[in-house]
Amino acid sequence: MSDLEMPPAPACAFASDNAAGAHPLVLDAIVRANEGHALAYGSDAWTAETEARFRDLFGPQATSLLVWNGTGANVMALAAMIRPADSIVCSRWAHIAVDETGAPERVLGTKLQTVPSLDGKIVPEQLLELEYLIGDQHHAQPGVVSITQSTELGMVYSPDEVAALCDTAHRLGMKVHLDGARIANATAALGGTVDALRSFTVDAGVDAVSFGGTKAGMAFGEAVVFLDPELARRAKFIRKQVTQLPSKMRFVAAQFNALLHDDLWIRLAQHSNGLATRLYDATKGIDGVTYDAAPQVNSVFPMLPAHLIEPLQAWCFFWPWDVTRDQVRWMTAWDTTADDVDRFAAGVAALCAAG
Amino acid sequence: MSDLEMPPAPACAFASDNAAGAHPLVLDAIVRANEGHALAYGSDAWTAETEARFRDLFGPQATSLLVWNGTGANVMALAAMIRPADSIVCSRWAHIAVDETGAPERVLGTKLQTVPSLDGKIVPEQLLELEYLIGDQHHAQPGVVSITQSTELGMVYSPDEVAALCDTAHRLGMKVHLDGARIANATAALGGTVDALRSFTVDAGVDAVSFGGTKAGMAFGEAVVFLDPELARRAKFIRKQVTQLPSKMRFVAAQFNALLHDDLWIRLAQHSNGLATRLYDATKGIDGVTYDAAPQVNSVFPMLPAHLIEPLQAWCFFWPWDVTRDQVRWMTAWDTTADDVDRFAAGVAALCAAG
Amino acid sequence: MSDLEMPPAPACAFASDNAAGAHPLVLDAIVRANEGHALAYGSDAWTAETEARFRDLFGPQATSLLVWNGTGANVMALAAMIRPADSIVCSRWAHIAVDETGAPERVLGTKLQTVPSLDGKIVPEQLLELEYLIGDQHHAQPGVVSITQSTELGMVYSPDEVAALCDTAHRLGMKVHLDGARIANATAALGGTVDALRSFTVDAGVDAVSFGGTKAGMAFGEAVVFLDPELARRAKFIRKQVTQLPSKMRFVAAQFNALLHDDLWIRLAQHSNGLATRLYDATKGIDGVTYDAAPQVNSVFPMLPAHLIEPLQAWCFFWPWDVTRDQVRWMTAWDTTADDVDRFAAGVAALCAAG
Amino acid sequence: MSDLEMPPAPACAFASDNAAGAHPLVLDAIVRANEGHALAYGSDAWTAETEARFRDLFGPQATSLLVWNGTGANVMALAAMIRPADSIVCSRWAHIAVDETGAPERVLGTKLQTVPSLDGKIVPEQLLELEYLIGDQHHAQPGVVSITQSTELGMVYSPDEVAALCDTAHRLGMKVHLDGARIANATAALGGTVDALRSFTVDAGVDAVSFGGTKAGMAFGEAVVFLDPELARRAKFIRKQVTQLPSKMRFVAAQFNALLHDDLWIRLAQHSNGLATRLYDATKGIDGVTYDAAPQVNSVFPMLPAHLIEPLQAWCFFWPWDVTRDQVRWMTAWDTTADDVDRFAAGVAALCAAG
Repeated sequence: MSDLEMPPAPACAFASDNAAGAHPLVLDAIVRANEGHALAYGSDAWTAETEARFRDLFGPQATSLLVWNGTGANVMALAAMIRPADSIVCSRWAHIAVDETGAPERVLGTKLQTVPSLDGKIVPEQLLELEYLIGDQHHAQPGVVSITQSTELGMVYSPDEVAALCDTAHRLGMKVHLDGARIANATAALGGTVDALRSFTVDAGVDAVSFGGTKAGMAFGEAVVFLDPELARRAKFIRKQVTQLPSKMRFVAAQFNALLHDDLWIRLAQHSNGLATRLYDATKGIDGVTYDAAPQVNSVFPMLPAHLIEPLQAWCFFWPWDVTRDQVRWMTAWDTTADDVDRFAAGVAALCAAG
Repeated sequence: MSDLEMPPAPACAFASDNAAGAHPLVLDAIVRANEGHALAYGSDAWTAETEARFRDLFGPQATSLLVWNGTGANVMALAAMIRPADSIVCSRWAHIAVDETGAPERVLGTKLQTVPSLDGKIVPEQLLELEYLIGDQHHAQPGVVSITQSTELGMVYSPDEVAALCDTAHRLGMKVHLDGARIANATAALGGTVDALRSFTVDAGVDAVSFGGTKAGMAFGEAVVFLDPELARRAKFIRKQVTQLPSKMRFVAAQFNALLHDDLWIRLAQHSNGLATRLYDATKGIDGVTYDAAPQVNSVFPMLPAHLIEPLQAWCFFWPWDVTRDQVRWMTAWDTTADDVDRFAAGVAALCAAG
Repeated sequence: MSDLEMPPAPACAFASDNAAGAHPLVLDAIVRANEGHALAYGSDAWTAETEARFRDLFGPQATSLLVWNGTGANVMALAAMIRPADSIVCSRWAHIAVDETGAPERVLGTKLQTVPSLDGKIVPEQLLELEYLIGDQHHAQPGVVSITQSTELGMVYSPDEVAALCDTAHRLGMKVHLDGARIANATAALGGTVDALRSFTVDAGVDAVSFGGTKAGMAFGEAVVFLDPELARRAKFIRKQVTQLPSKMRFVAAQFNALLHDDLWIRLAQHSNGLATRLYDATKGIDGVTYDAAPQVNSVFPMLPAHLIEPLQAWCFFWPWDVTRDQVRWMTAWDTTADDVDRFAAGVAALCAAG
Repeated sequence: MSDLEMPPAPACAFASDNAAGAHPLVLDAIVRANEGHALAYGSDAWTAETEARFRDLFGPQATSLLVWNGTGANVMALAAMIRPADSIVCSRWAHIAVDETGAPERVLGTKLQTVPSLDGKIVPEQLLELEYLIGDQHHAQPGVVSITQSTELGMVYSPDEVAALCDTAHRLGMKVHLDGARIANATAALGGTVDALRSFTVDAGVDAVSFGGTKAGMAFGEAVVFLDPELARRAKFIRKQVTQLPSKMRFVAAQFNALLHDDLWIRLAQHSNGLATRLYDATKGIDGVTYDAAPQVNSVFPMLPAHLIEPLQAWCFFWPWDVTRDQVRWMTAWDTTADDVDRFAAGVAALCAAG
């Protein structure tokens, strides 16, 4: 391949949605929030507005607390949900189990009970299989189930699937946490409306949500939204205790206010979701490229000829996924363009053709 | 007082230095960093520059890691310093002991051994008094001493004082952590040069520093700087594990690059320190206002007539300090102006005169 | 003193009540329990009997769980009592704060908020002084007060004192834990009846008790007794999780059954308490020996001529207490005899006379 | 079956080896240790002897610390072995992962990384498959591998298998912990000599051992033995901190001294191992009873006709194992007799025949 002349690389690579910066409206909100003094730790007008916006989204009983990052949001939400000796049930692909360097175990002191999954989703039967643990003093007690929407493998739970999980969980005395680092993409995939958001969260029976901001177009910042008011009672103390209380909170809140205004967060996710489909469509026919499934959100997981992965990464970076299958991940972001996708697909095609 | 006509309130109140926003150059750095894609979690050019800047400050052996906030910086630094069954020795006023909602105990699982202090400083003798604990299996083992520079009460350790503490600590087998949430103010107070910074940190024998950015003029972001390279070996894993790994790290790094450029951080601290002295000078003679000491950095702690505190807060907000003494805290920030100080002092004088 | 001929040393030294072995009836119970097979982890007849005995002592709502040791009992009880971000308020002399190597901080992840005390007792006003912390997100929330009865300095709370503490604690939303490593000695001191026990525990409003067995005459074993049934709901899971679930539990239960039978525990404590008074009476007049107070339970804390402490320890061992005051601790046990006391007092007198 | 006349049930059931009491020589040692005063917490002659006995077993570099129970031994050993952000790799059947109610996660704050296993054993390749995690800040770092010998499913690692695991672990920078709750049975199975013990521990490269006493014939008590002296440096503090320091330690030590004397521990395990084989031989031919494998230590895991399990349990209790396969566990103990086995086998045969 040394003599293959590749087309110009796309402006945006397909590494991750957190490689993108902040949306201009979000950045502008930061700039505009930088006026004069405002009391720290949430006693400011921007945060009050954000809290109202989350009540608009999830209903008047919803309590939102702004935090720094996704791991922090998950840990803080779960800290408010677990009882002593509980375990947290999640898929074997769950970010909390795989990609957070043991933060939940350290900060919560809690066992993560992982269950098998191919696509990052779990089903009610998997909770029922753990029912025998309940009441036995020798085993951690399944107390919370944490699901990721959209999943780490780019799949989306239907509202009915979430509702069925919540029903079973609640029947077993468990609470339900939804890791929504990419909740915008899931909302976009399920209809792109606030009703869609509600259908798989508050209407389905979810008790607490990690609501992602960073990957949706912010520079930083996430929210924990408690839909079960009881869980929110100690939340502000817990947030500080797990190091997730932003000092100059207006800078998180102002971003959310811009992102949540006029459904910007949904529109950006529709954009990135759409480009993942475009990328899938443009590459699925390339000789050497195979897929397990069509994308539901903003990532695709193709298998590639092994010897082409490194040259392709060198041209336009992306991350490997399952090295045992030569599977990689291509991810779009709010600022990926159709031209980026087309150039990238052209590069893939050229490389595969040169073989 | 209902008929007292107060002068116009200052533009900036004296609540805290974290009530201020970001310095324009820092904000501008955020805006300029928002260009295109950059790999997350520190694999970007801005972060590389910040790391180099911290090596310039502290020497080539220094390892810096960017984090979200002060509590996070302290917890992360200490997590890298403690051994099992260690305790952390600190003043009874220490932020980690008083103002972090038990974050150190929760995330570290470690006892904080507080020792008496009037001004937030501790002395080597207080470490020696704990030597009898060492080797006794019934007691947590003093493993780290954490000092705050400048202290929670606005006092500054001299370089010799820090060196003496480090000597004693090291002789007892302990490590030394410096909580530098206001390290800029301390640096300004001790000469306002990088040499001054070094004199009470790396030259004095400090092993790890929480280097404050937020209160020094950033929108958010702090750094943990390990001066003992051995402590840095596991630091990147620990940072993620304690939920303090920023995703789009360029936005923290860019701010530090602006703040550390051309000693901006020191100049801003000189400014706020100077205005605290101006406020002290302007109020120490007012009948009813008394002080224990002149300010060393950017805060003063006056005692006021009890019945005037609330009216004064209503006019221009600040926080109480020691309610048993009618003591309050007035704090200046990088954006406080001489006019703010003068207006505020005038208001205090007017209120006290009206009695 | 090299040529001083000391009288024969006592058979039992005055080091600690945990230097004594097990009472013969307790040992016999172990031997008799060693018959055939019995299901582990508490599903045995001995444990059922112990649980009934504790209900007889504390009332039908009491739930008891057997554990290994005192630190374990305290940690397990507190683990069932704290909420996230709570702190545990205790005296600066509290065993949990001073003598447990940071076990509470590690296993609970909880801050211990120590308050001043001379004799190990605390008063309601000290809780009220912490009320300002409640509701402030920057501070750990006072959630449990832990008192020691009898205290680490051999003092006894009156039932009224405990009731007043419980009233205040409950009014502040706090729970009350009683560390009863020497609850037998306190019961003996307060009348020596089951009614006396109830007067300072269940009748006073205490929520959970660490009920000491080891120092009262067992070879090992303690009990956690929850008087507030709500606290007991998760207790069996917590016990296992904090490593305090005995496998062949019949060997703990059988000891308690012997100890609690026919008030043996109280009679043994009356014996050791009485001998401490005998020791006090026999030594208070010796030239060079001074006391702060007469003993209330089974220990005395004399100040001695500094140069005589080591020779006296070499003759008949005991532990130092406050080295800054040349204060030591002499403790009696269930098997200490009047002859031991008299010989020891004679030795002290001889040494002091030889000076 | 209502009219089936079962033979007389055995004196000892086959529920578990912890349903047995203490061996008479062990019990006698407890009784003889109950003489006079001895300083607590290990400063006694019995404990000194035990420490010497463990050095005799494992070599002069071995450091042993006595603890209460198996979960405590595992947690304490691992607490001395892990570094911050480490994970502990173990089989999916590992007692620490399945049967300790999340104690490791809570007390250690550490992720358990379970790997698949059919018989409780793991192989070096499973460590190598985790090598990709090492150095990646997003993942807990494999720091310790914990193996169980004999395994939870009654299988025994050969010395070569342990050595190969240790080699790979050490090459990856990991330490090796051996959970030896049934190390006596493994030693008996591998030759029944002290050399056999050494072959799969110190000679194989194991770094720390949880050495089981309770299941081997003691009333209570286990030991943690550090073969890597570096790991022992902080061990005594850690033991107290994780609530595992026995107060009247002579009662643990005396039992070990009896058990380790004249290889009693090995002879008892040979006995129980032999009876498991006898039980296997006596039942493997019964119609309706099937086995995956012959026993290697003191337990067998037969599949039974589903409808016969409850009647058999009612006649002579045992625990279910894998309910999805109608698999149960029958376990022998040091006091099981050949007559118990024969009666039990006869009962199984009678029930199956009536079936």
